[in-house]
Parts: sequence; C-alpha cells; structure tokens
Amino acid sequence: MKVEVLAVGTELLLGQIVNSNAAEIGRRLAEAGLDHFHQGVVGDNRKRVADAIRLAASRADALVVTGGIGPTQDDLTREAICEAAGVAMVFDEGYAEHLRGMWAARGREMPASNLRQAEHPAGAVLFENPRGTAPGVQVRVGDAWVFALPGVPQEMLPMLERHVIPFLVAEAGGETGVVVSRVVRTWGDPESKVAEALADLYEESVNPTVAFLASSGEIKVRLTARAADETEAAALLDPLVSEVTARLGSRVFAVDGDPIEAIVLDTARSRGWTMATAESATGGMIAAALTSVPGASDTFVGGIVAYGTAVKAEMLGVDPGLMASEGVVSEATALAMAEGAAARLGADVVIAVTGSAGPEPQEQPPGTMVVAVRTPEGARARTQRMPGDRERARTLTTTAGLHLARLAMSGDWWGTR
Amino acid sequence: MKVEVLAVGTELLLGQIVNSNAAEIGRRLAEAGLDHFHQGVVGDNRKRVADAIRLAASRADALVVTGGIGPTQDDLTREAICEAAGVAMVFDEGYAEHLRGMWAARGREMPASNLRQAEHPAGAVLFENPRGTAPGVQVRVGDAWVFALPGVPQEMLPMLERHVIPFLVAEAGGETGVVVSRVVRTWGDPESKVAEALADLYEESVNPTVAFLASSGEIKVRLTARAADETEAAALLDPLVSEVTARLGSRVFAVDGDPIEAIVLDTARSRGWTMATAESATGGMIAAALTSVPGASDTFVGGIVAYGTAVKAEMLGVDPGLMASEGVVSEATALAMAEGAAARLGADVVIAVTGSAGPEPQEQPPGTMVVAVRTPEGARARTQRMPGDRERARTLTTTAGLHLARLAMSGDWWGTR
Repeated sequence: MKVEVLAVGTELLLGQIVNSNAAEIGRRLAEAGLDHFHQGVVGDNRKRVADAIRLAASRADALVVTGGIGPTQDDLTREAICEAAGVAMVFDEGYAEHLRGMWAARGREMPASNLRQAEHPAGAVLFENPRGTAPGVQVRVGDAWVFALPGVPQEMLPMLERHVIPFLVAEAGGETGVVVSRVVRTWGDPESKVAEALADLYEESVNPTVAFLASSGEIKVRLTARAADETEAAALLDPLVSEVTARLGSRVFAVDGDPIEAIVLDTARSRGWTMATAESATGGMIAAALTSVPGASDTFVGGIVAYGTAVKAEMLGVDPGLMASEGVVSEATALAMAEGAAARLGADVVIAVTGSAGPEPQEQPPGTMVVAVRTPEGARARTQRMPGDRERARTLTTTAGLHLARLAMSGDWWGTR
Repeated sequence: MKVEVLAVGTELLLGQIVNSNAAEIGRRLAEAGLDHFHQGVVGDNRKRVADAIRLAASRADALVVTGGIGPTQDDLTREAICEAAGVAMVFDEGYAEHLRGMWAARGREMPASNLRQAEHPAGAVLFENPRGTAPGVQVRVGDAWVFALPGVPQEMLPMLERHVIPFLVAEAGGETGVVVSRVVRTWGDPESKVAEALADLYEESVNPTVAFLASSGEIKVRLTARAADETEAAALLDPLVSEVTARLGSRVFAVDGDPIEAIVLDTARSRGWTMATAESATGGMIAAALTSVPGASDTFVGGIVAYGTAVKAEMLGVDPGLMASEGVVSEATALAMAEGAAARLGADVVIAVTGSAGPEPQEQPPGTMVVAVRTPEGARARTQRMPGDRERARTLTTTAGLHLARLAMSGDWWGTR
C-alpha cells in the first residue's frame, strides 16, 4: 500500500508557512506501516493540482491531499479532483443543512460563500469536521484512493486518525505492520567516521534500515524496522542496536531518551553534585541549555557569563597575570574560570568556556574554543578548533561542554584513554 | 524562469524533521521574482531521486535539490544526478586537497570516506561550503539547471544566496521583475490587535500584499510588492510603509534591519553605556542573545545566571530578607538583582529577570515573569504572565527584556506614557 502526500497552497510555495502537515502525516503513515515515498507541494492553481493528483494516482495506491477545501475562491482542490477523476461536482443538500445548523448554533448567519463546502465530487464520501466547516472528502481517482483534508492541522489530524489511517490499514489487509525506529546517539566522532564504522551494516541493511543524522555536533544512527508488530520489530532491532552500540563503543551516550542537557543534570544528581557554568565565548548558552530542563533548579545553581577580561578577574578570581602570560583563550584560563566558579557559586561541577567565536580573531583564530570541566574528582581542559561561523562554533562548543561534563562525571576523563 | 525545489531525505518522509528548507527557498525565489510552482520530497533512494530530478527537469528551467550530498553511504544525490543526466562521476583532486587542508587546519585526520565529497557529476561547477565539507553542485540535466545543496540549513542558505539566486536571476534576464518585501517590526501588542489596526489595508491588498508574522513575541507586518524593478517596487511600498508605521505608532521599532539584540547593543553603544544581565528564569538566554552579535564585547561585559536563591544573595547582593518578604519572584527582587549586577559587574545598563518558568509553580503560577531594567537614568520593573510552556515563556521573556531595555535606554520608560 503506497501512499503519497500532496499539500495545496501558494502560501507554502512562498515560504509564508512551513509544511508541518506533511511531516505529521509521514510520521503517522510510518507508524501504521504504510509505504510512503513521495511528498509534493503545489499552489492554488486548478490545473497544476489536477496534474499532481493524476501523477500520484498513477504511481501510488492512495493520496492524501491537504489544503484548498475551504470556502474561498482560491480553494480549488475539489474542482481539481473532479478534473482528475473526470466526474461532475454535485451539491449535497444534507451537508448544506448541517452547515446552516452549525452557524445557527453559534447564533450567526452563514455567509453564502460557505455553501461551496456542500459541493463535492460525485461519488465522494464525506468526513465530518468537528473543528471547522470544511468536510473531508474521499473519492476514487483511477486506481487510487484520494483523500482531501483541510490545511489547518487541528482540523486535518482528527480526520487523518479517525478515517484515513484506519481505512488504509484495513485496505492493505495483512500487508502492513508497524514501522519502529531506535536512535543510537553518539558524540565525539565526525559523521564520516561513524558511517565508516558501520559501512557493512549500512550496505547490507534492508530491514532494519540504517541512516545517519547530524545535529548540533551529535551524530545519530537511526535504525528502522518494518515488522508485523512491536514484538517482531524489537526482535529485529535489538541485535542491531547491540551491534551498533558495541562498534561505536564509548562514543554512544544513549539509545533514544532525553536531550544531553537532561542527561548531564541526571548524572550530576545521581552523584549528589551541584552544577554551575563559567562562560565567555558561549555567552550563557550552556546555562540556558541546562535551565531549559524542568526541575533543573535542584542541581544547577547558577553561572557567570564572564565576557570581558575584567569580569573574569573580578567575578571568577582568575589571576590577570595568568591571563596575560597564558592568554585569555587558553586551557590555564579555562581551568581557573572553572575553579573560580566552583568556589564563588559553591558548586561541585563547573563547565567553563573561553574562546574566539569570531568573526574577528581574539588572540586565537576564530573557532578556537577551550572547554574546561571541574568535578570534585579532578579538572581538565580541551582545546578544539570548531568549524563554521560564530553561531555554529558556539553551538558546537555548547554541545561539547555538556558532553565533556557527562564524561568527566562518569570518571571517563577525556584524553586519558 | 520556472524553478522547482526537491528535498531528499527519508527522515523527511518519516516526519522526523520538518522541511523548513523548502519554505526558505520558496521565500527567496519569490523575493527574486522567480516562478515556483512545485516542491517535492523523496527518500534516500537513488532511483526515486533520479526519477524526481528527471521529472522536474522536464517541466521547469531549474531545480534546487537539498540534502543527500554528505559523506555517508546514504547520501545519494550526486549519484542520482549522474543517472538523470547520463554523465559519469569524476574525482576532483583539487577539492580533495581542499578537504584535507580543512581537516588539517583543525588538527584532525580526515576519514577516508570524506573523499566522497570530492566526487561530482562530470561537467559540474562546485560551490565552496564555508560552514561544512560538502560542496554545492551545479550541473545541466536535459534543458534544466540542477543545483544540489546541503540539507543542513546553515550550509544551504549561504550557497543559495551567493550562487543559486544570482545565477537564476541573471539567467532569467529581463523576464522577471522583482518581488520586494519590507517588514515593519513591532513589539508590545498581540497579533490580533496589530491585524485589527490594519484590517482595511489587508482586505484591499493586492499589490503590495499585507501579511502578519509572529515570532518570539515580535509581530511583523510584511508588505510585498511585485514590480518591474526596485524603483517601481519602492514607489508601491513607501506610502504603505508610512501608513502602517503611522497606525501602529510607538509599537514599531524598526523597518527591516538587524535583530533586536543588535539594536539594543547599538543603542547602548550610542550612549556610551556598557551592559550586563542578571538572569534567573531565563537562565542565560538574554546573555546568549546579546553575545550572538559579532562585536558585542565592546559593550556587553557579562552576566550572572542567579538560578538558586543563595546565588542571588551572594553574587548579586540581593538582601535575603527582601526576598523572604517580597518574594523571589517580585519586582523588588528583580530591581535589586539589576542594581547588584550593575555594581558587581561595573555595567551601566542591566536587564534582570526573575520568574516562574514552570511547569511547576515557584511562588507564582507558571509563566509569571518579572523583568527589570536599570540604566544610569533610572530603574523600573514589569510583571507579565506569559502564555505557553516553559520554553515559550522563557523565549517571550528574553524578547521582552531586550525590548524593555531598548525603550528604557531611549528614555521611553514603559508605563509612564
């Protein structure tokens, strides 16, 4: 059962809104085990919508169209379906009555243009819209089922879940099952190195499939299985998760689960430690990440954004002589910032950052970033040259700071392996 | 000049990420006056990518493909272009040398698989990637130009702006006109109130069109004109910009221009003032925003993230008795935090925040946020109940803090009008 998705709306082509409907529908099709290989977007133009419907109907078993079924003149999806299916438009007096009743219940008179919503392609099944006035439409175009749903996500999703997905799953008979993904999350190696370590698994992969995703410096390996049910999916995935995890070793920090900032706070909490930050180049980003986690306040006490050199000396007690001799952007300064924050803020674990974010060099070339972590068991710093522009370097350093703290708190001091 | 957009990536079909690239590209094509009627998404499957490229090349003059050009085995866009164009893959020793140099500059050895990025379809033009390792590719497929860009938005956008759009505009010759947008940016009124004030302009709008966009608490009014050239577009837009600006009055803080954090730093700089932050509920987000601006260090000295109550007392000198009697989440505490940061950090202007970000209440209901601003000319605090979840409340408060500082530095103390 191959299903395509088509969004209708000039506002999507103009980039005035993002096509989140397609992602939502894709997720639900995958969960239902339905094949889904194509998504498209066309504007409010009858001929182009009709052509897109014909194309999809020729290569898939079903098409979910979103948008273009409202009451205004630029809502052309019903007309386009008539054109693609070669059927006439009919007026449904029963639905017209239903619409009049809805407006009457709200104590308002219905604008005449709304009666357009009682028109539909001959032979269509209508779905009620509990959150709006445009009904959903199901109709046959060639050998495919076409569903036309509202573009407003809050109206579209209930119809998708109550009508479209159950119909397609039933139609597919025993052919569908479930699609289940597990995400092995790593930090510390570039995407190409992770992919090399798994090259043969990737090449052989049919079910489960293997894919790589990079985000903010973390590399994720997504394993996706298609199976009759959750148990069978787990049986396919579990050995592969174990194999991938074994090959990537200490680079793996989680399979699925919480974001790194929550993992860091949990790690500190489990050891009974409090946390603080001392940031220069990242300017508060690590503190902002940690405080994005609900309940952070039992573990995170606070931070110093020591942007100017004077603030590093006064608020963190970093020796100006040290900064002059070793450099403000140096491991010695980062370590002194970490110790200073631990003492001043009364925290057990500190993540400290100093660096040259760019675009102008500051002592060091732009992208040179030094992270230090201090725990009650020790302290260590690392210098890295981050790729990309100012925001990319700051984001990668924020991720690095969180991961280096995770490792340090687990006694896995980097560079000692 | 008809341009299509194709995104490659199974993660898009599975709904694991939303296709924001298509919206961004669509927006920029519209601004450049280029026709854009179709967008598509296909998964990481060479045959389907090649088929989609052939289809687009048959009905459009140009195709922008995003994704699938990274170093891993599931990056198949280059192979699919070769298949669609009927050309061979060639290895570019010059680009390979460039890649080795990039890795060497970061002091790391390049994984061999990265050399895939030095392969490209025969006859292609390559675009350098200043923020990553995958070059962009421009190649002829049939009668159409095909551009393959990275899927990572931060890498894709610079190539789009520097290479693709200028090339297409030149290629289109006199055929296009221009589509020019001006954005009137406001803060302080909800979207519905801004829209009400402009209702008649919106109803009448054909060219220029009027649209409303809400982002992080700012409401933007986008006015878009289609015209033969920039001069004609300006003649259409200027009177409308004046009318909109006059109606929205003091809520307007800029037409186009820099983000609010840059405006705030410029305002402080123009008065010869330095800035600092004292944040509890926003946890460093205001400091992170200010330090995202290149050159912030001449004005922003630093900040205290005073998350725990003890840190508010010790690092900012807020009287514990005051916090006990007035509340930690109170205007008195916010003002004391601002004065404390000014004294300890030696700054002229301080933005201070205390609040209950949620989801658990802290003294006050979740979403209760207090912002104080202190300048050499005075100090004032404001309490607001922010809608939405924890991250939304923190984001809206970050924006509010920056705008209240902008107003205060301009002598426009809120609540005194």
